[in-house]
Amino acid sequence: MNFSLVLHGGAGTITRALMTSEKEQLYQSGLKDALNTGRKVLQYGGTALDAVCATVAVLEDNPLFNAGRGSVFNHQGRHEMDASVMDGSQLTGGAVTCVQNIRNPVLAARHVMEHSQHVLLCGAGAEMFAKEHGLEFADDDYFFDDFRFAQWKEVQHSETVQLDHTEKKFGTVGAVAVDIAGNLAAATSTGGMTNKKWGRIGDTPIIGAGTYANNTTCAVSCTGHGELFIRSVVAYDISCLMEYKGLSLQEACDLVVMEKLVKIGGEGGLVATDALGNVAMPFNSEGMYRAFCTPTDSEVLIYR
Amino acid sequence: MNFSLVLHGGAGTITRALMTSEKEQLYQSGLKDALNTGRKVLQYGGTALDAVCATVAVLEDNPLFNAGRGSVFNHQGRHEMDASVMDGSQLTGGAVTCVQNIRNPVLAARHVMEHSQHVLLCGAGAEMFAKEHGLEFADDDYFFDDFRFAQWKEVQHSETVQLDHTEKKFGTVGAVAVDIAGNLAAATSTGGMTNKKWGRIGDTPIIGAGTYANNTTCAVSCTGHGELFIRSVVAYDISCLMEYKGLSLQEACDLVVMEKLVKIGGEGGLVATDALGNVAMPFNSEGMYRAFCTPTDSEVLIYR
Repeated sequence: MNFSLVLHGGAGTITRALMTSEKEQLYQSGLKDALNTGRKVLQYGGTALDAVCATVAVLEDNPLFNAGRGSVFNHQGRHEMDASVMDGSQLTGGAVTCVQNIRNPVLAARHVMEHSQHVLLCGAGAEMFAKEHGLEFADDDYFFDDFRFAQWKEVQHSETVQLDHTEKKFGTVGAVAVDIAGNLAAATSTGGMTNKKWGRIGDTPIIGAGTYANNTTCAVSCTGHGELFIRSVVAYDISCLMEYKGLSLQEACDLVVMEKLVKIGGEGGLVATDALGNVAMPFNSEGMYRAFCTPTDSEVLIYR
Repeated sequence: MNFSLVLHGGAGTITRALMTSEKEQLYQSGLKDALNTGRKVLQYGGTALDAVCATVAVLEDNPLFNAGRGSVFNHQGRHEMDASVMDGSQLTGGAVTCVQNIRNPVLAARHVMEHSQHVLLCGAGAEMFAKEHGLEFADDDYFFDDFRFAQWKEVQHSETVQLDHTEKKFGTVGAVAVDIAGNLAAATSTGGMTNKKWGRIGDTPIIGAGTYANNTTCAVSCTGHGELFIRSVVAYDISCLMEYKGLSLQEACDLVVMEKLVKIGGEGGLVATDALGNVAMPFNSEGMYRAFCTPTDSEVLIYR
């Protein structure tokens, strides 16, 4: 019996110098909670798809992370969220973008995948779909966070668009898994960039860019400078390097994150697993909140 | 001096039996107009990027094609358009999705690429960006078409979402080119699916799915069942098969369109070119409006 689960809670300028030990513990326990939730699913024979959705939902519920409840404020002072999920056994995907007040965008993305003819739904239309399908909504208070609000107020009247990961709190969450049946899945969720305007969409809701899963290669969930991840089609690139060029999971991840992305200034990282349960967690930024488990091993990490 | 330009005006159930000779002539002259516009740009030493944008803009202005002026009606009786563009020399991209009343969405996509830090802008935000940058808007009358309206009225009160290409008029336009400097570019634009709801987004505005360009491999613009093209990351897959597996443009196109997409029921096609000026126009549907030119050759085609 073999399985693996890898998750991330965002990448960026995460250094020991900027961290208090109290904060560090909060992050570690947040990552551990999410990891344990997904691990239990896999241990008891659940699917990779169930595991990554449960893991990401726990991270969305934690205000520490820029996704779901902890989403940053956009230019209008609202929370606009994106999420996507892919089932590597069926090569099916679902995603929502620019949605407000959906408590767990990752569950909405899964609903799009399983209960619509579509892959990607947007804005008010996506919210209507979520309502019609009985997904849970939460009011603005639920998404309000003092730190996020201060973060926004600082730049509200400027044209500055802050990547959440230039701040002390960091953004985007995701998980990938392989279950004991050998099926792979990936899920990613984000609140985007502080003060973002013009309906900016990053890589998170884009199948192939921020999220990809394929039983024959790998499952990938990304975090970082979304525009550069879209242009590089990061998640699918790793799958192609394995399938067409015969690279191992680690080789493909290192090439894409440590060489190709670095070359164009694409800061960030990703988590990945293959059908054998190998895991990779490459990042080219100062740090990345991350954790993984297999039946015999488990670790929660923050810094390089 | 070498260059090539390939365009499409949509794929689908296009058969001689469903076509009158009058209609056929209209389509042929519409395709020829667009082709000549792009050809002139390339002949006089212009860039591939200028050529594909000019070509697609002419197709957007033609009510025959489901993009720009000829866009279909969505569930709310509105026109919601998507477009994207990629510059293969810089590996930069720009796109807009769910936009209304922008006369030429492809030009808005190019503006996002060249004048913002972003790749993909959505809805009202994207429209605000376009307004701030002086792009031309048109009122609803400009986008009104009797045929499109009748098409929508027929299914308005049903839950039917009609792919435009199940109708007698067909959807999505696009172009790819290589210029005499050896630079590649691709652009795609669409009005989506008749009666679409929930803010559905297809492959057209997704860099990697509907559009991709890379000087070292190819430029690709897709048309077809968007959901399956997203899940298959079609445009980037062709680039990867060339770069990582050493396939020729034609081999890569045939594998993706005639085998991989057919296997999952993904109806449609694409146009592609490589740096040597080779062109490919594979499709697995009944027909595809398409045309290409090189310095010595030129052809406008509709059926198999």
